[in-house]
Amino acid sequence: MSNKIYFTPGPAQLFYTFEEHLKKALFLDIPSISHRSSTFIGVVEETTAALKELLEIPNGYNIYFLNSANEAWDRIIQNLVDQNSHHFVNGSFSQKFYDFALSYNKTSTITKVEDGAAFTNWGIPEEAELIGITKNETSVGHSFLEEEIASLRKKNPDKLIALDIVSATPSLPIDLSQVDTAYFSVQKAFGLPPGLGVWIANEKCQEVALKRANNTSIGSYRALPNLKKFGDKNQTPETPNMLFIYLLGKIAQDILQAGVQRMRNDTTYKAAILNQAIENHQLLDHFVASKDHRSKTTIVAKTNDPEKFIQFFEKRDIILGTGYGPHKKNHIRFANFPTHSKESVEMVCDLLEKIE
Amino acid sequence: MSNKIYFTPGPAQLFYTFEEHLKKALFLDIPSISHRSSTFIGVVEETTAALKELLEIPNGYNIYFLNSANEAWDRIIQNLVDQNSHHFVNGSFSQKFYDFALSYNKTSTITKVEDGAAFTNWGIPEEAELIGITKNETSVGHSFLEEEIASLRKKNPDKLIALDIVSATPSLPIDLSQVDTAYFSVQKAFGLPPGLGVWIANEKCQEVALKRANNTSIGSYRALPNLKKFGDKNQTPETPNMLFIYLLGKIAQDILQAGVQRMRNDTTYKAAILNQAIENHQLLDHFVASKDHRSKTTIVAKTNDPEKFIQFFEKRDIILGTGYGPHKKNHIRFANFPTHSKESVEMVCDLLEKIE
Repeated sequence: MSNKIYFTPGPAQLFYTFEEHLKKALFLDIPSISHRSSTFIGVVEETTAALKELLEIPNGYNIYFLNSANEAWDRIIQNLVDQNSHHFVNGSFSQKFYDFALSYNKTSTITKVEDGAAFTNWGIPEEAELIGITKNETSVGHSFLEEEIASLRKKNPDKLIALDIVSATPSLPIDLSQVDTAYFSVQKAFGLPPGLGVWIANEKCQEVALKRANNTSIGSYRALPNLKKFGDKNQTPETPNMLFIYLLGKIAQDILQAGVQRMRNDTTYKAAILNQAIENHQLLDHFVASKDHRSKTTIVAKTNDPEKFIQFFEKRDIILGTGYGPHKKNHIRFANFPTHSKESVEMVCDLLEKIE
Repeated sequence: MSNKIYFTPGPAQLFYTFEEHLKKALFLDIPSISHRSSTFIGVVEETTAALKELLEIPNGYNIYFLNSANEAWDRIIQNLVDQNSHHFVNGSFSQKFYDFALSYNKTSTITKVEDGAAFTNWGIPEEAELIGITKNETSVGHSFLEEEIASLRKKNPDKLIALDIVSATPSLPIDLSQVDTAYFSVQKAFGLPPGLGVWIANEKCQEVALKRANNTSIGSYRALPNLKKFGDKNQTPETPNMLFIYLLGKIAQDILQAGVQRMRNDTTYKAAILNQAIENHQLLDHFVASKDHRSKTTIVAKTNDPEKFIQFFEKRDIILGTGYGPHKKNHIRFANFPTHSKESVEMVCDLLEKIE
């Protein structure tokens, strides 16, 4: 790796133990061994076990390997939505999930507020089969509250809830028992290169997919019952991204070993000092108005001159995130992931003070 | 990497320059930079250009990045097949493509012969919209001849032809102008870890996908028109497997630099000595009866005692391929990919002689 530190919210800074595990993986020939070998079955088992512990995945929920969060949207619609899904949208990624549903000719519906705004209307159309929520809207730094998710669950016990936990997990505690399915890509808070996605789904999802399969196609190799058939044996239907599955397991183990609570305390501390630095800065302001809904893992500041900040930091080998999509010209984003040390975030805060 | 040499037909031995390029990729922060950055757009451009030259991809054919050949089957059916596809099946992988079509509730048809047998009946049902052919049936070592593909093309000018070039490309010369779409995964002859697939499709495929999109869903982010929209800008719809796209380009460049013709001559030489060794061996015989249809890249021998061979070689840190699926107990397979040196194959032949 170069001397740069990436505070971009994904692709992001690689996890600090990444290279060490990569070397070991090559030494073990992980990319060359058979994906049906007992060695690789052991890798899938180990990675699955580490994720189950780290993410506190409830019993009856299974883990499947995809290639991106985009694919999770795609497969969720294919497998779990017959006619309607309902989406809470306040940024580009929650919007995309809704767009994917439309591309599958679903008559999906949407509760849309301004980018980064908190939701106030919690009504869901009766015909919605699945509710799409984004725990951390990476594009604008809005965080869905745990009590908001629990309340949706309580009011809609018969609907599936799909939770996007990209760039939220494993940094934030998330009660997965309040949702039926969740998904993330590994190039955010896990500090891996992009190319692997993780899809968590409970038995209710399996039932819905199986039932739908009687009347329609739910896809091929990544139909949920097929994923489960192989997953139950710690296998995958196809030759998967074996190297990244191995590395994900190792990084999950490292985070567990170092202490999940400590990592989460650090996340809170780093978010607090970044937020303070934004508040103290005359050229910066919070983008998300509601303090409670500000993301701890993707801190978004608005400014009239993002380039000033980005270039100042880039000269010092620190790469900040630009604003996403329509916000490119008036936002900067700071990722706050487990690999970012407290010292490096303190340095960012100190440097911010020097920009006038 | 360990001291082992993998002659398994995928996942396979990593390309001999893999580690060098991997180190460079990490130094350049390829896994951390933005997938929308000019640097990564340059990577996609470079990889695409190298593949176009190496595979002699005709004008009007575009390259898109998927995650596996399994995904190519999935996306081809989603995008290009309305009701019927027809599949030439003489092994497990050609069978799987047909099975994928059925899982999408297509009324697809099949010309099935015994595993590894050559085809003699070339009739195609009139209603077939797409013909599925497997250039190299990796499971049993059968190779489709270039003249067979050309003849199918001539007799079926209005149907799409989809060619599976997994474990065939870039080792074998393939006239892609005789087909409309082709696909491969990188963990075979390119010597990369699994997790990336390449999908080549011509303008006729785009037209079919666009036309179908008026009446039905052709998928979401990996609908062909969406892949083209991003591909035309050397981008991908989602955050892709950036690291492997970079590495694929570098390995393609290395093969070009070392000389494609030389690599193909070497492939022919290595296949010839392996075939000779099989013929000379009293415990081995060719599985594919038709000499012309024997794969040069996946040499398959039948034997009553595959474990004897596999264990003998494993003791010497050489990993042979087992038989695939139903042939596990009476086949061994030898991959013959660009990374396998003539010397290493000569060594395998010499060692074969020692087994009695």
